[in-house]
Order: sequence, then C-alpha cells, then structure tokens
Amino acid sequence: MIPLSEHLKLRQAEVDAALDRLTPAETTLPETIHKAMRYSLFAGGKRIRPALCLEAAAAISDVAPGVFEAACSLEMIHTYSLIHDDLPALDNDDYRRGKLTNHKVFGEAMAILAGDSLLTLAFQTLTRAAGLDAAGKVALMEELSFASGTDEGMIGGQVIDIESERLPPTAELLARIHRAKTGALLRASVRMGAVCAGADSAQMAAISRYGEHIGLAFQIVDDILDVEESSEALGKTAGKDAAQGKITFPAVYGLETSRAMAAAECTEAHAALEVFGERAVRLHQLADLIVHRKA
Amino acid sequence: MIPLSEHLKLRQAEVDAALDRLTPAETTLPETIHKAMRYSLFAGGKRIRPALCLEAAAAISDVAPGVFEAACSLEMIHTYSLIHDDLPALDNDDYRRGKLTNHKVFGEAMAILAGDSLLTLAFQTLTRAAGLDAAGKVALMEELSFASGTDEGMIGGQVIDIESERLPPTAELLARIHRAKTGALLRASVRMGAVCAGADSAQMAAISRYGEHIGLAFQIVDDILDVEESSEALGKTAGKDAAQGKITFPAVYGLETSRAMAAAECTEAHAALEVFGERAVRLHQLADLIVHRKA
Repeated sequence: MIPLSEHLKLRQAEVDAALDRLTPAETTLPETIHKAMRYSLFAGGKRIRPALCLEAAAAISDVAPGVFEAACSLEMIHTYSLIHDDLPALDNDDYRRGKLTNHKVFGEAMAILAGDSLLTLAFQTLTRAAGLDAAGKVALMEELSFASGTDEGMIGGQVIDIESERLPPTAELLARIHRAKTGALLRASVRMGAVCAGADSAQMAAISRYGEHIGLAFQIVDDILDVEESSEALGKTAGKDAAQGKITFPAVYGLETSRAMAAAECTEAHAALEVFGERAVRLHQLADLIVHRKA
Repeated sequence: MIPLSEHLKLRQAEVDAALDRLTPAETTLPETIHKAMRYSLFAGGKRIRPALCLEAAAAISDVAPGVFEAACSLEMIHTYSLIHDDLPALDNDDYRRGKLTNHKVFGEAMAILAGDSLLTLAFQTLTRAAGLDAAGKVALMEELSFASGTDEGMIGGQVIDIESERLPPTAELLARIHRAKTGALLRASVRMGAVCAGADSAQMAAISRYGEHIGLAFQIVDDILDVEESSEALGKTAGKDAAQGKITFPAVYGLETSRAMAAAECTEAHAALEVFGERAVRLHQLADLIVHRKA
C-alpha cells in the first residue's frame, strides 16, 4: 500500500481533473465569470472534502457511481463559501492560501457573482452524476442542500459566528457554531460518498458518526493552528480569531485541553470505522492527518 | 370564469402560503438570517415566475405533483438575484418594490448571506417536491440550475450586462443579454410546471416556445417602463438604465419599434399555445398582461 501522502496526491489530481471537466472553460462566454470561478477553485485547496467523500465510498464498495461529481460539488460549495467569507463586508481578507482573494483580483461585484455561480454549479453538477440513478441524485442533493443551508447548516454557522463575536465564549455556543459552520459539510462529505457506494443504514450511521467526530476534530485543530502557526505557514492571516473576538476552542478551553479534545475526537472517529474493517484504512489515516496537520 | 386579476390574487395567496411553509420561520435559529430571507421574499413581489409555472402545469394536466415547490424555488432564485443585484458593489440600489433593499435594512454581510441562503433553499425545496418521483425532481433541478447558471443562464446574463455598460448597443449583444438574464428563468418557469404535469415532448416544445416569447416580451416591456414610468410607479429608481449606459431595447431600436417588437413576441406566444386549446386560457391572459403592465 502506498503512503497516504502519495495516495492523496493521486486523488487530488483525479479531483482536479474532474473539477476541470465539470466547470465551464475560461473561454466559455462570459469569460470573466468563468475565470473568476476557476481562479478560486484551483487556488491550491487541499481537497479535504472530496478526499473524505471518495474514501468513504471506497470503505463501502469498489463501485460508487457519481462519486466524483459528489466530491466536486462539495469543493464548489466550500470554495463559494470562502469567496464570500473573504469579502470586505464579511471577513475582509486580502489573502487566502497565500494568494490574493477573489475580490482583490476580480473586484467585489465579480467575486459575489463567482460565489453565486459556484453554488449554482454545485447543484448542476449533481444532476450530472454519471451512472447514479435519480433516487441517488436526489439523496445527494438533500445532503448537500441541507448541510450548506441556514438551519443547522454552513450558512447558519457563519451567521452565529458573526453575531456572537464579542459575546461571552461558552462551550454550548462554540459547539453550535462549529457543528453548523464546518461540521455539517464535513459530515455530508462522507455521507455523500456513502450514498454513491450504496451504503445500507448501519453503514450510513457509522460513516455519519465518523464524519461528526472528524468534523469536530478538524475545527478544534483549525482554531489551535490560528493561535500557534505563522501567517506564512497558514497561507492566510494568523491570529485573526482572537483579533476579531471569535469564539474558539482555545478561547473556551485553553490550548492544552483543546489538544486533548482533538485527540479524543480522533479516537472516537477511529472507533466508528470498526464495521468497515480493512476497507477503511484510508479513513483511519485521514483522521490522523486531520489532527496532526500543520496548516 | 373569474377575471385574471382575481385569479392571480388567489394564486398569489397560495404561493405565499407555500413560501411561508417552505422557508424557515423567523424564530428558527439563527433568527437574523431567516428574518432577512423573509424580508425580501415577502416584499411584495408579483410572483410572475410562480404564476407561469402553475399555469403552464394547468394547461397540461389537473394533476401536477410538486408544482408548488417548483413555483417557490423559482421565486427564491429570483429573490436572491435581486438581493445580490441591489448590493453596493453591483447596482447599488436603496429601494426595491418601494421598500428599502435588503442590505439597507440588514447590512451588507447579512444581505450577501441571505442571497446565498435563498439560492440554497431553492434546491432544498426541490428535494421536497411532494408526490413527485425522483426522476421528476432531477428534471426540475436540471431546469433550475442551468437556467440560473453562468452558461446561457441568469448569472451569465448579469455578467454580460455589467461588462457591456458603455459598449456600443448592438442588437446581437442585447438579444444575448436578455435571453440569459431574464429569458432563461422565465422559460424554466413554464418548463418546470410542464415537468410536474407530466408533459410529453410535443407539449414541452410548445411550452418552451411560449416561454421564450413571453420572456423576450417581458424584458422589452421592462426596458420601456424604465424610460416611461416614474420611480414611484415602478417602486424602484426609474431611468437607471440610461444613467448607467445599459444596453436596452429602446436604446437600440427606439421606443416605437420596441413597442411593436413586444406586441409581435406576444402574438408568437399566443400561437405557441395552440396545442393546448382551451386549457391554456390563463397562459394567453398572462401573455397579454406581461405586455400591457404598467410596472
């Protein structure tokens, strides 16, 4: 078995090829919007959500029709949310992954529309899921649209996050923000892979538990890195959470307890994978990677 | 048969009730985003797209499962596009339908997220289309996602519109902008109603032709009204097209020829309805209404 880092590079190349195929070319009219969409889509993202989607499917079956479309739709939603988050009216960030943010290159109007376009393209992409039956496509759309929505979904988490700046950082509020803001989409990532692989209900329950635990671990580590790492290592402005008065895990629990919590979530994630046996080896490795990453 | 105006009032009440049922309550957490979504969703829209969807279905069958969800998804897309269009970085409008625009009430950050939320909710809504089979739901998603996208769809039209300000107003450019910017979604409105009603391919072709002609008529009349009517009558800033150097039908063809073109499109729309016989009476009336409206 090749090491995870090699494996992820191959997967990333496959995902990038699928994204390229599923996104209108830069020469498709009107060119500007397609250039703006592609600028952020190919700005060096780590493709964590697509990787989770693909490996969840692989843990269940060798055959998973539509799994690349599912993986790409997740990356499109993630990318649109970053473009809009970076806008002056929201986080007002000039850099993302070490490159200028979308609105710094294309202007605010085009950045707003590029975000809208990627959000729309995500759902278009699911209608094109190759080889998947209509019921499977509808199941994917349910997962993606609820996970990225307002009610316990991604946008809901962003709103609570914005509104609770400078509020007393309580454990309950923190849990609610992160379950919605990043947790819902990470959970949907593995569930969508499982849908494509034809998971039964026990498999779906197990993969959901895995998704919830690595989702929380991911966010705890993100908050820790914002405190510990340099802007250079992160490719974005470090220390922003504290400067903006954001409610974070280190702010609520301190760094040491936060590290212990991330490790505990990782252990729970491993436990959830038991039903999949040997097939889940990449999901086990991804859980460890998420907790031990440096950016 | 009751007059169209009465009929539309009843339909509008049904659509409003469905929108209310399909959109999270103002008390659903996080409250602000749901208030912002509802503010624009219930700001006095004429519900033209839902009406076209419902009447297209009625022209084909008495039974059209999921048609209210289809109708509401169209209004959600239309409303999100208005919220984002009105933002300072785009058209920078303070009023819409005689009320303050979303960002003037809720701030830019929340207006951006409210638009994103309505776009997401539109696709969520289609997954909930009551009584429609999975193949029908996927067909609705194809229609909606392509009509509102960048490649010959709504966002594409907005981008060309923005980029061609101050360019020489040619007939070809004008046709391209409007086919995409408003035409695609109006065409999708009748096609989605037809999908719910189980249209055969001849009926789908006829309803598409109708949709294309009333779509063009609608836009020509919109451009004429921007020149002729007061801001008060329109509920938005009149004369903005000329001030912004937009390419409009009056700018390319003059007012008199524009009026004749709208009438000709209306005639073609009527002709397209022939296959539906008596069942299409409301679609005939809607075509006339679109051409003779004053706001």
